[in-house]
Amino acid sequence: MGLLDETLNQIQPLDEEAMEKAAFRWKNLYTGMGDLGKMETMVTQFAGVTGEAMPAIPKCCTVIACSDHGVYAEGVSAYPQSTTVGMTKAYVETKGAAANAMAYYARSDMVVVDMGINADMSGVPNLLDRKIAWGTKNIAQGPAMTRLEAIRSIETGIEIADEKAREGYRVFTIGEMGISNTTSSACILGAFNHWNAIEVTGRGTNISDERLRHKIDVVQRAMDVNHPDPNDGLDVLSKVGGFEYGCMTGVILGAAANHALTIIDGFNTTASAFIAKALCPEVVHYLMASHLSLEQAHKKSLAALGLTEYIDLDFRLGEAIGAGIQTRMLDYALSVYRECAAKEEEVKA
Amino acid sequence: MGLLDETLNQIQPLDEEAMEKAAFRWKNLYTGMGDLGKMETMVTQFAGVTGEAMPAIPKCCTVIACSDHGVYAEGVSAYPQSTTVGMTKAYVETKGAAANAMAYYARSDMVVVDMGINADMSGVPNLLDRKIAWGTKNIAQGPAMTRLEAIRSIETGIEIADEKAREGYRVFTIGEMGISNTTSSACILGAFNHWNAIEVTGRGTNISDERLRHKIDVVQRAMDVNHPDPNDGLDVLSKVGGFEYGCMTGVILGAAANHALTIIDGFNTTASAFIAKALCPEVVHYLMASHLSLEQAHKKSLAALGLTEYIDLDFRLGEAIGAGIQTRMLDYALSVYRECAAKEEEVKA
Repeated sequence: MGLLDETLNQIQPLDEEAMEKAAFRWKNLYTGMGDLGKMETMVTQFAGVTGEAMPAIPKCCTVIACSDHGVYAEGVSAYPQSTTVGMTKAYVETKGAAANAMAYYARSDMVVVDMGINADMSGVPNLLDRKIAWGTKNIAQGPAMTRLEAIRSIETGIEIADEKAREGYRVFTIGEMGISNTTSSACILGAFNHWNAIEVTGRGTNISDERLRHKIDVVQRAMDVNHPDPNDGLDVLSKVGGFEYGCMTGVILGAAANHALTIIDGFNTTASAFIAKALCPEVVHYLMASHLSLEQAHKKSLAALGLTEYIDLDFRLGEAIGAGIQTRMLDYALSVYRECAAKEEEVKA
Repeated sequence: MGLLDETLNQIQPLDEEAMEKAAFRWKNLYTGMGDLGKMETMVTQFAGVTGEAMPAIPKCCTVIACSDHGVYAEGVSAYPQSTTVGMTKAYVETKGAAANAMAYYARSDMVVVDMGINADMSGVPNLLDRKIAWGTKNIAQGPAMTRLEAIRSIETGIEIADEKAREGYRVFTIGEMGISNTTSSACILGAFNHWNAIEVTGRGTNISDERLRHKIDVVQRAMDVNHPDPNDGLDVLSKVGGFEYGCMTGVILGAAANHALTIIDGFNTTASAFIAKALCPEVVHYLMASHLSLEQAHKKSLAALGLTEYIDLDFRLGEAIGAGIQTRMLDYALSVYRECAAKEEEVKA
């Protein structure tokens, strides 16, 4: 049995007993004249994830997966493909990207991984080299990758999550960088939800009307050529996905297997959550949403996962920025939960 | 000229030049593939408030104004009036309230002020004693307070803001504690917006259907008895308000006069913002919204002020919890703005 299957077998339902204890404690906290609404839900879920009725403020790890896409050749993006290289370097070299400021704010450690950037990145410091290929193949013409490459990309994410979980991390946030990847996300979310290309294709980095029409055509073509099977997560990933989706899917699965939470971010991370769900439906309980992106199909995609956003800031970025804000919100909810005086004695944790 | 009039005269329009510089810098930041949406708006506003194109991460002061209400006698609340005493003591003595955990999270210093609690609070440590009376009079029968008391309550808030501004605080968050005060808020917001009692009365601390019907009657009676004049902020405050609203109004005005921002919280703080706006329309530009409370008229009240919420967490609490989260969001937006590499040279601040 390979790492992927082992990991899928390790994912258990949330710990009901810890969740009941947490819900009981909330009821008895002296929070005053009302309740803390969704903050209570966050903490109760986290108790179920960790199996602890009184979880500590967690260490958080941000994984940003970077990769390129063959479908770039179809002209679906407003930015040149070299932007993937530029932004990846910004994360690890100059550290002047929004994601770096976020990681500092969220007290999060950052892992930036090259899953398949279409350039030689061997000299770049602090970049985890897990390159599977120099970009995926063009999904408008055939599958993005082989099924074995899909498994390899997911197992890469699992390995990262396993290692970080051993180091004590209990919350993961995921983000990505890859020019043209909202085209893949449209295909992934369309495949799993039976949405057509018009319903699911958005403006990505704010492309023009004309380019949007063209992008819709490309999404439709990718679906027609590949026929991804929504009952088979590996099929969807290999046919219309990308290496960064595999990595993020793996982080989600690996985190869940290790009783850790994954906070998703925008449109592309939500697509990876659907792949993870197809491989293990239970895993959605180990996911928390953060912000609502401007990408048009994001809200209904979160709803289809059974998640709701907590923050609405009109972001277009996909660098785990919204997820970073959400980690601090969870920290705060946990602080209130831990530090507020209880009307009765401490719950027996 | 008294302190109130002096303060009103000091409030200036936002600094356009600083805002233009900030907007220019955002355009040139290397934030990657999209934009940071409302975070950009937050920073640009803060630049206009402070008059600085590159504002530092601000020191934040939370002012929680506590007071009682004569209208409690009408049976509009689910909790006994003594809860005001209990919660106020929790803020300053046991420090086990949600507001304390929030202040820690938001790196905020907390001022808790007795504006008119219906009990002897003289022995309570760390509580600022500015008691105007032992609770307001019953607004279902006549005015809550005299016009002079209304001015005194506002000037108390101005004095607090002035002192804290001298100590370097640039952001204020406001919160309140006062059993029965959502009844006052309904009257205040109804008066300013010409909304009737049904439109504006909500469940406060989640009261029953029967009590809600009764509360609507009481709100209507208070409006009929008092006829508050929406063109006169002091008239609305003195007739249907409360001492804590005066204090919060004063903090808003005093902050604006000192080029500091006030982040409002839930329903009651929004009511105080309307009083401040009636006294000085310009002051709304010195306000930032935070969360959307469950109180039914909150969303349309924010919209009527020209503000929008950033967070939606289903809170019923009014202890500046949502505002606290928002301060950290502003801090983060400022960090990105300050630390992200710019494509061109640093804006000349």
